[in-house]
Amino acid sequence: MSSIRTLEWTGDSLVLIDQTQLPLAEVKVTCSSTNELISAINRLVVRGAPALGAVGAFGVALAMIESSRENWTDERRAEAISAIRGARPTAVNLAWGVDHAVARMDGGLIAVIDCAKKIVREDLESSKKLSIFGADFVLQKIMRRPIRVLTHCNAGALATTGWGTALGVVRELHARELVEIVYVDETRPLLQGTRLTSWELARFEIDHVIQTDSAAASTILRGLVDFAVIGADRIALNGDTANKIGSLGVALACREAGIPFIVAAPSSTIDPNMFNGDEIPIELRDPSEVLTIGDVSWEAPFVGGFNPAFDVTPARLITAIVTENGVFEPDKISMSLQTMER
Amino acid sequence: MSSIRTLEWTGDSLVLIDQTQLPLAEVKVTCSSTNELISAINRLVVRGAPALGAVGAFGVALAMIESSRENWTDERRAEAISAIRGARPTAVNLAWGVDHAVARMDGGLIAVIDCAKKIVREDLESSKKLSIFGADFVLQKIMRRPIRVLTHCNAGALATTGWGTALGVVRELHARELVEIVYVDETRPLLQGTRLTSWELARFEIDHVIQTDSAAASTILRGLVDFAVIGADRIALNGDTANKIGSLGVALACREAGIPFIVAAPSSTIDPNMFNGDEIPIELRDPSEVLTIGDVSWEAPFVGGFNPAFDVTPARLITAIVTENGVFEPDKISMSLQTMER
Repeated sequence: MSSIRTLEWTGDSLVLIDQTQLPLAEVKVTCSSTNELISAINRLVVRGAPALGAVGAFGVALAMIESSRENWTDERRAEAISAIRGARPTAVNLAWGVDHAVARMDGGLIAVIDCAKKIVREDLESSKKLSIFGADFVLQKIMRRPIRVLTHCNAGALATTGWGTALGVVRELHARELVEIVYVDETRPLLQGTRLTSWELARFEIDHVIQTDSAAASTILRGLVDFAVIGADRIALNGDTANKIGSLGVALACREAGIPFIVAAPSSTIDPNMFNGDEIPIELRDPSEVLTIGDVSWEAPFVGGFNPAFDVTPARLITAIVTENGVFEPDKISMSLQTMER
Repeated sequence: MSSIRTLEWTGDSLVLIDQTQLPLAEVKVTCSSTNELISAINRLVVRGAPALGAVGAFGVALAMIESSRENWTDERRAEAISAIRGARPTAVNLAWGVDHAVARMDGGLIAVIDCAKKIVREDLESSKKLSIFGADFVLQKIMRRPIRVLTHCNAGALATTGWGTALGVVRELHARELVEIVYVDETRPLLQGTRLTSWELARFEIDHVIQTDSAAASTILRGLVDFAVIGADRIALNGDTANKIGSLGVALACREAGIPFIVAAPSSTIDPNMFNGDEIPIELRDPSEVLTIGDVSWEAPFVGGFNPAFDVTPARLITAIVTENGVFEPDKISMSLQTMER
């Protein structure tokens, strides 16, 4: 088992594992300009809320370097930074990372790079801390040993700077030799479960099965799962949580089955400006992602595609939100912000 | 708009629309032997509980013809019929159709073919009747005009002998010019929603959008849908209903949103021998169906696939079951059997 480096800063470029090629090929993509970075974010070469926080901060450094090289005006540079900030709308961390780095621009490039590196370091620490909190909480709530887990999408090393949030909890439980099996939702339309979560779990030597997203409810209600754990793209102050489309369905099934549904995310995922989940912008992606059969795009009159990338799970369906600061009842998640300082 | 002929009897063979090729190609498959028929059933060239009822009955005729042609023993012929009967385990209609035809074997081939044709005729009548019952019920329950519907998998003309059950209700509402839009779950892993339901709705000129199965819960909870309607593969006497994997998740979301979740199926789908849904056998299909990325099969140590084709929605989550005999509260579905006679 080797560790996963989701992103690496070379000094003047950001090197990313191309997550669109996994698990069939391990290819790196080098971003030396803001346009290359924005394209990589849009194409989901890199994704996952915590990873996007670090990417946003390095993006500001990239914009500063490109601006010097190309003699940009301050306005042009600000536009480039703003374009990175808005490259994806739902994960709050991207804007959060950009904003943190922008606040250091007066200190020059070195200060911005230091800020970005600090975000990476702290994200790694946060992931590890919350994984321990999460594992302890799960072991307290669930009596069965070993434990059977369900997860949706990818909230692993690839979604962060190298450890994982939801999968971090699973890794922590696995390190304690307490994981029987992980049910991995394939996560249509882009198959982050099959492509990324399965790739990670195989690397970490954790037994798992891939299932269709629509199998989750019956797997849970048939009693095959002890708890579900997901990551988050944005958490409102009331605990409502935006995450990959399909998370809501998993939460409904968990409540019906009476098993814990846990959100694992760093405090940077909490949006202090959003009071509830209705305010969270939901990214609508290209309908072609849900209209493709094999290699062919299905088109006909009267046919359209509806492709929201995220849904919002109301706080009432969430058992607990686990951050680097502890385990919180969803409606008290703002307490996790109070101990956070950068 | 032209009608859809899911199956046609030529006198000595059964011709099927190849549903694995739709919507990209309209190809017919001719089954002249029981082996060809069993292969077609296994590969889902033909599927859908009511259609399988007719296919089962014609299968007996095919076995009789083949038996004469090949000088089979009675035992061999009985084995062939039994193989057809067990080709798929979840839909009760396949066994039901075989049993009805077998009961006519004493009358010779003509009697068996007549029995099969009667099943086709009665299925068509049943579909049309239940569609009217369903549409009337929906209009009584829902005030909004026009109406927004969600459906899962394909319970249309292709799943029956030519009209449809869940989609029959939608067609009936559309004939009354009351359908605004249909949300079509793509229905992984084989995409019956995208391949079959969308193809049918386009043909019937009904506006619809395809979405991932995992989008259903949020589409419903965001208030975008007025009711959901699905078909059934087997209904237990207490109203528990087996249908395509993912139906249960739709039902949970409908209950949470407070909108009707309706099952539309002919009485032949009710299994008088099953008291509740726990007894219904659930077909586990090949894991490769959930391990394929593009054209490549993802294989690695620690990776498996879990691929149940159906789930069971408990009666308590079902608003009503609509059959050719009327609209029933789920736990009173056995009343629909009392008026049935073949």
